[in-house]
Amino acid sequence: MTAQINRQWRIARRPVGLAKESDFEWHEEAVPAPGPGQVLVRNQYLSLDPINRAWMWHEDTYLPAQRLGAVMRGVTVGIVEQSSNAAFPEGTAVTGALGWQDYAVTDGVSDFLTQLPANPDIPLTMHLGLLGHVGTTAYFGLLDIGKPRGGETLVVSSAAGAVGSLVGQIGKLYGCRVVGISGSNEKCGWLVDELGFDAAINYKSESVFKSLRKHCPHGIDVYFDNVGGAILEDVLHVLNPRARVVVCGMVSVYNDVGGALTFPAGPNNLFNLMLKRARMEGFACLDYRDRAAEAIDAILAWHKAGRIRYRLNVVEGLRNAPRAMSKVFDGSNSGKLVVKMS
Amino acid sequence: MTAQINRQWRIARRPVGLAKESDFEWHEEAVPAPGPGQVLVRNQYLSLDPINRAWMWHEDTYLPAQRLGAVMRGVTVGIVEQSSNAAFPEGTAVTGALGWQDYAVTDGVSDFLTQLPANPDIPLTMHLGLLGHVGTTAYFGLLDIGKPRGGETLVVSSAAGAVGSLVGQIGKLYGCRVVGISGSNEKCGWLVDELGFDAAINYKSESVFKSLRKHCPHGIDVYFDNVGGAILEDVLHVLNPRARVVVCGMVSVYNDVGGALTFPAGPNNLFNLMLKRARMEGFACLDYRDRAAEAIDAILAWHKAGRIRYRLNVVEGLRNAPRAMSKVFDGSNSGKLVVKMS
Repeated sequence: MTAQINRQWRIARRPVGLAKESDFEWHEEAVPAPGPGQVLVRNQYLSLDPINRAWMWHEDTYLPAQRLGAVMRGVTVGIVEQSSNAAFPEGTAVTGALGWQDYAVTDGVSDFLTQLPANPDIPLTMHLGLLGHVGTTAYFGLLDIGKPRGGETLVVSSAAGAVGSLVGQIGKLYGCRVVGISGSNEKCGWLVDELGFDAAINYKSESVFKSLRKHCPHGIDVYFDNVGGAILEDVLHVLNPRARVVVCGMVSVYNDVGGALTFPAGPNNLFNLMLKRARMEGFACLDYRDRAAEAIDAILAWHKAGRIRYRLNVVEGLRNAPRAMSKVFDGSNSGKLVVKMS
Repeated sequence: MTAQINRQWRIARRPVGLAKESDFEWHEEAVPAPGPGQVLVRNQYLSLDPINRAWMWHEDTYLPAQRLGAVMRGVTVGIVEQSSNAAFPEGTAVTGALGWQDYAVTDGVSDFLTQLPANPDIPLTMHLGLLGHVGTTAYFGLLDIGKPRGGETLVVSSAAGAVGSLVGQIGKLYGCRVVGISGSNEKCGWLVDELGFDAAINYKSESVFKSLRKHCPHGIDVYFDNVGGAILEDVLHVLNPRARVVVCGMVSVYNDVGGALTFPAGPNNLFNLMLKRARMEGFACLDYRDRAAEAIDAILAWHKAGRIRYRLNVVEGLRNAPRAMSKVFDGSNSGKLVVKMS
């Protein structure tokens, strides 16, 4: 048996623009032992999400800002290897914000530790790619905040991402016309041909505004926004009366330039919210932790029935996590981006 | 008896920036006779509101764009002088969008004609200054969209305007801490000393952001927005979790420069809506026409009890309407700006 080493990526500095590998510091230390009430989790897969970049800001997001030198925050799935906490026995599969590291010691509270069902039909990666925080984000963001009705038109940005692709598919199940916005013809093809979207817009090669006019002939009733910026402005021009804009994320603002959180200007047509009596509302999946089972049960049932699909983009090795993170911004990712740890 | 002449201001061209008198055309014609089902109303007072400027755009607002050559749209109070419509007998006091003119013929539907109560305690101007569209805008915008709760902090911009001053006073009645934003020390003094606001910020002489931090030590729960722009951005920085932003108007965007509806950039921190799980929602008082009595009865009762005050800024003579309109943008108005017609 080799010495038990815990490999980590820690935050070395606040990135300027896209996070670079040099913004992180590789660190190796002995695997810690759990104290009373604690468990030791061995991480198997790490989720990379656009919001991770905002977690590197010097200001709080919906979670406290991370201090320099801290292990980079990230959602993982793993197995409890040692336990002094009856709620999480050894061998339990868990998910939580256990960080960019092989092993984490946690009391199970501060890291949102959650036991995963012991279901042999559910691979660990499905908890990151379809269920877990992706599933609750898509499900509650669309249904609780967006409140789509049959026959309405739903537009979703970052549509080929894990959350966006799920939002669009749930929208179809609810009887909506669904239009996705994504960054490549391959991804647009996947959305329409395999996931059943009614149309997809490649924002890199088309006028989003013109294509929205074309593909949303009856206007937009629900916009599930993952990007903000210019695309949000285009969408605001096409809103229907009583439309709902779900503010899930704003990829366009995460890559803070200069560490000063000086962001690009916002849409110049917010007045359309008044003209259309529309609603724009933010949410965070953490607020739905106590209702998570509702989302996961529904999504799992749809998946088993073949009505919901997902895809994974697996990067091998924790070493590659910093470089892989840029994939969620440069358009080279589709589906759920995860890092396989060992 | 002199010849019956109907004096009108018609729209001559789309203004660039602030509307000037030369953007309007003075017109005199014979007073029209009402046809079957129609009434002839003699306007007594004309309401000037910031949104009037947006009604001059070449694009629709929540009402259809006005064509060039049309009598300028405006809300008036007046008396029915001739009637072929049993719903509005001669002598009835009415309000409606009867335009910048001495007389209007209407079928009572297309101009939102509404009979005013025959109550000798209510001067006609009170229907423009406190009740009517001002009252329903303030009452339903604040209570239905903003949903303030006792102990919360309410911020209102254009706070010394007709709607803003009423919103703040209703907020106090609902137990809120109320902070107004206005453009002169005189107006700020009126808000605090006479209307009972807890604090007022002079945006022309103070940093709105710093003053919001100072006067809203527990953050902002409801923002009643009449202006948009930089002040909206400042407010978004101070939002509390689950805050509500009521989009009532956006004075900062009405004065279209160049007739192209090219507006100044929006706030760069809309992402705070997600970080704070906040809601930003537009509304228009027209949507509440069938519930208007609820607002008017409540406001009238508060006014009689001495708990709600309002003030009028009366400009004499229809001739002066175009010049007076700039008062709602240059900060020289407070309270309800009306034109006395004859």
